[in-house]
Amino acid sequence: MKVVPLTKITIITENLLRDRIVALIRKHGATGYTATKVEGEGSRGVRASDWEGRNDRIETLVSAEVAEAIIEDLNDNYFEDFAVIAWLSEVNVLRGTKFIS
Amino acid sequence: MKVVPLTKITIITENLLRDRIVALIRKHGATGYTATKVEGEGSRGVRASDWEGRNDRIETLVSAEVAEAIIEDLNDNYFEDFAVIAWLSEVNVLRGTKFIS
Amino acid sequence: MKVVPLTKITIITENLLRDRIVALIRKHGATGYTATKVEGEGSRGVRASDWEGRNDRIETLVSAEVAEAIIEDLNDNYFEDFAVIAWLSEVNVLRGTKFIS
Repeated sequence: MKVVPLTKITIITENLLRDRIVALIRKHGATGYTATKVEGEGSRGVRASDWEGRNDRIETLVSAEVAEAIIEDLNDNYFEDFAVIAWLSEVNVLRGTKFIS
Repeated sequence: MKVVPLTKITIITENLLRDRIVALIRKHGATGYTATKVEGEGSRGVRASDWEGRNDRIETLVSAEVAEAIIEDLNDNYFEDFAVIAWLSEVNVLRGTKFIS
Repeated sequence: MKVVPLTKITIITENLLRDRIVALIRKHGATGYTATKVEGEGSRGVRASDWEGRNDRIETLVSAEVAEAIIEDLNDNYFEDFAVIAWLSEVNVLRGTKFIS
């Protein structure tokens, strides 16, 4: 099987930030992404807006280094003031080398 | 990187059960969730309705303990009589501590 | 917890190929799937069409053997000429035995 281990970053963001988040991931080397409309809902214990309303789910496949850069940038510039959730998964990507910029 | 290992639970459920499933995950401590409309299709070998029709995909990030409680409850109360699919993934969540209730 | 480790295959494909990809995964033993509409966008560094436009995201839960067969088939028949992205994740599935055909 011609698979390459890569990091998948999933970002849930309010619609307003979508273009900025896409620009951010590209700046660090993501070669593309998919976006899906999702609904979220929060509750006590987490800032409500983090999950709430109509959001975009952005996913991209990147190397571990690019993932680290994206996460640092999100952490430094978006997590204090905006409703953004992000997580990393380890996946095996078919023809994965084309996602490494 | 300020990430915390958490369990992501993904639940595919028929629309009718959505509110009950959301109440279930909250009861056990999930702080929020995202929901997406998905289409599913089954076939021989699995109860057809498990994948069929317009379903909701519900995702939530929780601790291992909360994941276990949710899965037990789903298993005890929904898997015999309803079309529900659920799986767990290990993910690394940015600012993950806020998802631990 | 009654969970079974399985492989989740996620395939991003242009709409036109959806039925063929579904037939392919079923031929190799997938018992069902979910499909979601996604938007994608590519850029330099990856063939643009791989991420671009309105695509379908197809997900299925299968054994490691079925995953290997699906990936080989995709690799041999779709990756040269079509805009298809695919990755594998390891997940733990509630009542997972019913997904093994």
